[in-house]
Amino acid sequence: MNAASASTSTSTAISSLVGADVAAIETPALVIDLDAMCRNLERMAAFARDHGLALRPHAKTHKSAAIASLQIAAGAVGVCVQKLSEAEALADAGISDIYISNQVIAPAKLARLVALARRVTLAVAVDSTLGIERLVCAWRAGAIDGGSAELGVFVEIDVGQGRCGVAPAAAVGLARQIVAHGLRFAGLQAYHGKAQHLRGAHEREATARHAASCVRAALAGITSAGIGCPLVTGGGTGSFGFDAVGGAYGELQPGSYVFMDRDYADNEAPEGAAFGPRFEPALFVKSQVVSRGLSHAVVDAGHKAHAIDSGPPQVWQRELVFANGGDEHGILQPRPGASADALPQLGDTVWLLPGHCDPTVNLHDRYSVVRGGLNGGTVEAVWPVDARGCLA
Amino acid sequence: MNAASASTSTSTAISSLVGADVAAIETPALVIDLDAMCRNLERMAAFARDHGLALRPHAKTHKSAAIASLQIAAGAVGVCVQKLSEAEALADAGISDIYISNQVIAPAKLARLVALARRVTLAVAVDSTLGIERLVCAWRAGAIDGGSAELGVFVEIDVGQGRCGVAPAAAVGLARQIVAHGLRFAGLQAYHGKAQHLRGAHEREATARHAASCVRAALAGITSAGIGCPLVTGGGTGSFGFDAVGGAYGELQPGSYVFMDRDYADNEAPEGAAFGPRFEPALFVKSQVVSRGLSHAVVDAGHKAHAIDSGPPQVWQRELVFANGGDEHGILQPRPGASADALPQLGDTVWLLPGHCDPTVNLHDRYSVVRGGLNGGTVEAVWPVDARGCLA
Repeated sequence: MNAASASTSTSTAISSLVGADVAAIETPALVIDLDAMCRNLERMAAFARDHGLALRPHAKTHKSAAIASLQIAAGAVGVCVQKLSEAEALADAGISDIYISNQVIAPAKLARLVALARRVTLAVAVDSTLGIERLVCAWRAGAIDGGSAELGVFVEIDVGQGRCGVAPAAAVGLARQIVAHGLRFAGLQAYHGKAQHLRGAHEREATARHAASCVRAALAGITSAGIGCPLVTGGGTGSFGFDAVGGAYGELQPGSYVFMDRDYADNEAPEGAAFGPRFEPALFVKSQVVSRGLSHAVVDAGHKAHAIDSGPPQVWQRELVFANGGDEHGILQPRPGASADALPQLGDTVWLLPGHCDPTVNLHDRYSVVRGGLNGGTVEAVWPVDARGCLA
Repeated sequence: MNAASASTSTSTAISSLVGADVAAIETPALVIDLDAMCRNLERMAAFARDHGLALRPHAKTHKSAAIASLQIAAGAVGVCVQKLSEAEALADAGISDIYISNQVIAPAKLARLVALARRVTLAVAVDSTLGIERLVCAWRAGAIDGGSAELGVFVEIDVGQGRCGVAPAAAVGLARQIVAHGLRFAGLQAYHGKAQHLRGAHEREATARHAASCVRAALAGITSAGIGCPLVTGGGTGSFGFDAVGGAYGELQPGSYVFMDRDYADNEAPEGAAFGPRFEPALFVKSQVVSRGLSHAVVDAGHKAHAIDSGPPQVWQRELVFANGGDEHGILQPRPGASADALPQLGDTVWLLPGHCDPTVNLHDRYSVVRGGLNGGTVEAVWPVDARGCLA
């Protein structure tokens, strides 16, 4: 929509950015430190490999076929998404193995899902009898070509978050229903979103242990019913280290590790290298000072440029705090104890580390991808956020 | 970006929506109750007319040329925006009188601003000597055709928010600089963003009185320097009633009144019809229950479908509260005291009144525009959010 309506001068400015200095990126803009991001990709891939686990990163974080391709090149088996329209956008952009780790209930969407299964390797989660019945209807209506396509169906269990998913003991009933209808039971979806952001490493470990016990309870019911469970998938950037050593999971689905954010950086790291590698901040919002008072500076990035559901951004490598300036502005003040000289001048660039990477990405149409660091580096590419706004 | 990458089935689904029942709108979706929105437009237009004030609604709220056109047809003189790229997008979509009520500092943007001034009636705000110098440079560099274009330049004063704008006493210096450089001094920008959301009517009235006193102080300095001040522009949906009767403003720039939201509905209304008409909720997020527990339901709309900077959405006309379910989900529970029967069933539609309309709109690529009510109405149009993601 925006690309079509953007003025010619804007489009020209974007396409001519490749090869330019970082200074040429107009603000506010979403910028990837590609060196840092590639190190993050390699570290997670190596961790999964070392633990004998499949890695299926969550593309809800980046919504980008370019990044999904790099993850797959580094060893990932495919990607997860949360919405059907995300899957469609990534499939259109060339990604061929996608798991929708969420429920799809609307019949019109299920018809599209079945159509998509003809184009890519596809899987979806279910957590209700009605959901399976509707999926079966759509599958039968769409499979008139003889059924060469295949669809994996995971049963989501609630491992402690109290959001989606059935109780572990109920998983067997849904698995039986899937098998009875001739669909492919692909395994268990077991993700605890809230656990990712618990600050204390011991708290996160405890929730991961609880999740693993839920998985084992569900597995016991399923296997005693004589149904094979091919895979248990789950885990995130805050819990993958614990999930990997708990023995319950066969596949990890972390998303945020590619970018990290202020919120994940606030998590206490667990002690011991067994619990996984460290990741570096790789996603920033470039902003500019557009107004300057005696004791504050105002940048051109507010709620519309970065999400604040996990708190405000961190001002990167400056002695400044970011205060709420509304939708279009951020108000910068010296940190307590810092000198007033810390305040930037009118026109200065200020880098922000977003509070939460996933919804921040969803605000932007493109990434400016930089090699050689934020200061003095070069724009190597401009990548579309292919699945931006793909909510349905 | 998304329109281009959307799969054929999605595009077909959207274009065939016009004339369909509300039930056909896929979730989550941004939906306008057009009957309510048109009543809001008329009420604000009548209020401004009755008070002898110009009305220049803020298009940062809706980012839509279709809505801007309706506002202008109802009597508005043009629209405000916050960003140059918003102005470009609305100009491309046919809006011809635009005021950027914000600072533009980057030289590359100022060159584009000057180019835009050749195509539409344009004005911009300044609050610094450097800002004016850069604007003058860009104006001279761009006005090589003899300078048939004109650009209005407003001086922004800080009327109490402590964000952008100079102190009232400093306005005369900037006005003098504008005039000395041969630019057109258009008047004063005087907006207090935070005041719009103060809950108590008396608090909002007090801040409006303070803003008016700042305006009068700035005006006194400017007129005693022999400079004419053509216009004072400002005010918002939370303050316009007080601003209108204070005698300081010649033009009102409310934005949210077209849609309203949960946050504005939480404001205490002032007593007395003199302080303006009431507005109706006209913007909703349509969501669907995709998972159902024993004591909660989960809808498919989270942070990526509605902004939460002003708190969670209100569940519309149901005895339910919305709890944070993360980026992609919302968790619904019965209101305290309500029966468990209040919980919707799997597949049910749930309407959400966003906490804050402006950043919610910015998450969506299009509006589904409904006549005849949310329940049983018909989709009359699908409008693009023309300036979605126009941050720079």
